[in-house]
Amino acid sequence: MSRQSTRDLIIATADQLFYQHGFEHTSFAHIADAVNISRGNFYYHFKTKDEILAAVINLRLANTQAMLDKWYSEAKTPADRIRSFINILIMNQVKILQFGCPVGTLTTELSKLNHTALDDANQLFNLFRIWLKNQFRELGHKKNADKLAMHLLARSQGVANLASAFNDKKFIQQEVKQLHEWLEQYTNNN
Amino acid sequence: MSRQSTRDLIIATADQLFYQHGFEHTSFAHIADAVNISRGNFYYHFKTKDEILAAVINLRLANTQAMLDKWYSEAKTPADRIRSFINILIMNQVKILQFGCPVGTLTTELSKLNHTALDDANQLFNLFRIWLKNQFRELGHKKNADKLAMHLLARSQGVANLASAFNDKKFIQQEVKQLHEWLEQYTNNN
Repeated sequence: MSRQSTRDLIIATADQLFYQHGFEHTSFAHIADAVNISRGNFYYHFKTKDEILAAVINLRLANTQAMLDKWYSEAKTPADRIRSFINILIMNQVKILQFGCPVGTLTTELSKLNHTALDDANQLFNLFRIWLKNQFRELGHKKNADKLAMHLLARSQGVANLASAFNDKKFIQQEVKQLHEWLEQYTNNN
Repeated sequence: MSRQSTRDLIIATADQLFYQHGFEHTSFAHIADAVNISRGNFYYHFKTKDEILAAVINLRLANTQAMLDKWYSEAKTPADRIRSFINILIMNQVKILQFGCPVGTLTTELSKLNHTALDDANQLFNLFRIWLKNQFRELGHKKNADKLAMHLLARSQGVANLASAFNDKKFIQQEVKQLHEWLEQYTNNN
């Protein structure tokens, strides 16, 4: 395996482990064992867990931006783009039921740890916030665009939290339906 | 200090540390140092961190039940009781901005740790869920009472998450206003 692909594999594995078990709980050893490489090879790429976290956040930022770009180009109207956002609760429901929202649970944990990477992790929320704000602006809600974006982000966070706590798939579906109904009042049939 | 009051102090201190820094991150040593007692005295009361967690969850369950009972007896109408619930976002906003919701962040962490205490921690959510459901039933929404209770719980969780991520007090106030408006449609002027 090339050096770059080993590095990418470490980052992708750490991304999953941080999401599934939390950053604090996931040790260097957990990641090295999961990747199945020698400690020497591992340390060649990363000296500290914080370096891995920084790489994981960068990976997530890149993946999130790519997803938002895809939604933007695939949907014809801003309303349909916002619908794509709402529907990730359904698309990712299996993981959400088990582990909650990957963004919200990471920022919550880093906040409690007073971790210096918190600001970078919060950029994940910011990507969604700014993108949603732009869609609401395009829908004509210039004054309230940011308020609507934050409201929708909070609603989706709340759904992920409760669905995960109660392991309740039906709850996700019922709330997603309500979010689509909520959106209708701002779409002017777009 | 009596044995009982030492034990109570350990539990209350652990409760705060778990909330502020997370369960996994808080060590036996952190708690003992904060309580300022000898390790021998500490171990007399608790042998493992899981025993402390169980006591912390019991304390939170008792405190939550006492708060719900107080809201019940202090407010004359079910609508006013639900308003008391919504207003905890304002009452606790300083802590929420720093550390998020104490219930949501604990259950999220225990879920990722696959911790056996998760079911007990989820009872904290259940206390709120059942209490809110009863208020909505009293308001006449017998069929949708649980759905409305879960919706409100999710909304409040989402507000706590986002307010904490963006350290945004104004956002809490703006969403609390919207929650009161949302409630109006179910109150029949009660």
